[in-house]
Amino acid sequence: MGIPRTIEWVDGRVRLINQLKLPHELEYVVTDDYRRVAEAIRRMEIRGAPAIGVAAALALALAAQKLETESLDEALRLMEAAASELKATRPTAVNLFWAIERVMAVARSATDVEELRRNVTNEALRIWREDIECNRRIGEHGERLLEDGDTVITVCNAGSLATVYYGTATAPIYVAKERGKQVNVIVMETRPYLQGARLTAFELKMAGVPVRVITDNQIGIIAMREGVDIAIVGADRVTRDGYVVNKIGTYPLALVAKEHGFPLYVAAPTSTIDLKSSIDDVVIERRPSDEVLLIFGRRIAPEGVDAIYYAFDITPPKLVAGVITEKGIAYPPLPRSLRRLARAG
Amino acid sequence: MGIPRTIEWVDGRVRLINQLKLPHELEYVVTDDYRRVAEAIRRMEIRGAPAIGVAAALALALAAQKLETESLDEALRLMEAAASELKATRPTAVNLFWAIERVMAVARSATDVEELRRNVTNEALRIWREDIECNRRIGEHGERLLEDGDTVITVCNAGSLATVYYGTATAPIYVAKERGKQVNVIVMETRPYLQGARLTAFELKMAGVPVRVITDNQIGIIAMREGVDIAIVGADRVTRDGYVVNKIGTYPLALVAKEHGFPLYVAAPTSTIDLKSSIDDVVIERRPSDEVLLIFGRRIAPEGVDAIYYAFDITPPKLVAGVITEKGIAYPPLPRSLRRLARAG
Repeated sequence: MGIPRTIEWVDGRVRLINQLKLPHELEYVVTDDYRRVAEAIRRMEIRGAPAIGVAAALALALAAQKLETESLDEALRLMEAAASELKATRPTAVNLFWAIERVMAVARSATDVEELRRNVTNEALRIWREDIECNRRIGEHGERLLEDGDTVITVCNAGSLATVYYGTATAPIYVAKERGKQVNVIVMETRPYLQGARLTAFELKMAGVPVRVITDNQIGIIAMREGVDIAIVGADRVTRDGYVVNKIGTYPLALVAKEHGFPLYVAAPTSTIDLKSSIDDVVIERRPSDEVLLIFGRRIAPEGVDAIYYAFDITPPKLVAGVITEKGIAYPPLPRSLRRLARAG
Repeated sequence: MGIPRTIEWVDGRVRLINQLKLPHELEYVVTDDYRRVAEAIRRMEIRGAPAIGVAAALALALAAQKLETESLDEALRLMEAAASELKATRPTAVNLFWAIERVMAVARSATDVEELRRNVTNEALRIWREDIECNRRIGEHGERLLEDGDTVITVCNAGSLATVYYGTATAPIYVAKERGKQVNVIVMETRPYLQGARLTAFELKMAGVPVRVITDNQIGIIAMREGVDIAIVGADRVTRDGYVVNKIGTYPLALVAKEHGFPLYVAAPTSTIDLKSSIDDVVIERRPSDEVLLIFGRRIAPEGVDAIYYAFDITPPKLVAGVITEKGIAYPPLPRSLRRLARAG
């Protein structure tokens, strides 16, 4: 696969793709300073829930490497300060907190600074590796759903660039390609931030997968006139009753899929399944109007006209053919199968 | 209603809104030269099928006013040349040909130049007036579907700016406002040309109708969380079997409407009902990739990645609650009711 890893540990430094330069330049940030990684998260040079979790973990490894004190108390104080700083970069990112807490638990149980340094680095690298392995397994389970010559439709970037490698929705496509299946992809551009056009098209092209971009409003005629075999999308959260919270545009795509008789699968790690929440608990983030109304800094509607911007939508379980996880595929009825997979060892 | 007429005959000259300056400036083109009107059509300073038909008719009136010969043969030759020039501006626009032919038939039956001049001008003004009257009647029929406090969703600009006045999909909204009903509008931005955000939001704001813009991919969550009472859209063509060809995005909106139990109405003059064609005859125009891939001149996907651009989609009759025409509303089953309305006097 021709795609570089989104983030990597190279000779004691962190190297990450600066996604703000995509799709036109492939430029890296290389640093041994955890503050620079924090800045990369804040400036969205790296984005995607799994990727920023890994970035924060590796940033803590950088902080540990730089410790110059031999006092464990002093070292822990410095590590806690770094952790706080990293948590503040994207205050609503659950994965970020989860990864930081996991690394800090290891730091707190160290008995000397050398052990702290070694264990923190190992834990961060373990989180990095687990992300790749988890996505790889999603890819292997999902690949069986794809046939040679299939056309897959997807939205936004639940791709390699949102993770360390493979992505979630893209993983089955990459594994299919490795195994010699030719798959074509149609990607919704995904207004307002155009992650489909900018990021998903970029990584699929790098991987040698044929990809075409559509405006989000073309999903119906594309299903009618181009032929689509399967939709695979990511998820930000799957509730215990099987509702899928994902990037805006997923739900209309699911309605089109149902109408035209092709399945819509959700690809997501079991960590995305939230057994504590149901549809009634889901609050959809509404974001500022100007994120819709300004494109490249230019206002697209008259001054004084407002916009609505829900960044996510909700797809009901009746429209979901299955949820592809690293532990296997949950098929309807989803409440039961999701519970079983989430709790499996 | 606070919206100026899109195009008007003022003291022997044509005055039209330069829509390329919208939504930020309201600027007019005023001319007594038919070639300037042709240029306005070509450059899309004026657009929308009914509006460009009227523009071509009024351009012929300008050409007639300027005739300096007393030879009828010479006058007709000049008029035919003007007609050819006007037809070449938008070679796929059916309304353009229809309006030009109607005016030229009057020109050809004149017995002297003075009569030609007078009859051509009168016929052009008649076409102009008929457009307003037709839309007004669509508005009166459609207004009964709206209740005080309703939220209407629409796509693209089937508005006053696409016609001389009132528009088609917007006409019921404007008539409702005149009659004291408070109606709110949500408009899909309508990528790639953003006519919803640029034009529909502009004219509704001018008319004092509350309007909010959404990205096209938000239709599902908007129906789920904001509450929509009715969708009203325009049409480029309605086939005899009741399929609606309209701006891209209409069909997914119709699926959402069905799922959420609100009706989708199509507003269009009976001239849009094509009793000769069925769904099998419909060829959907595919346009160049770059119209999707370039926004304000900036490429949104990597070089070498292609896009698909269908400018229209097709909504099946089972998703259409009715077709609002100047002669009344056609209700399902559409094939029968459309035929009856199209043939009614």
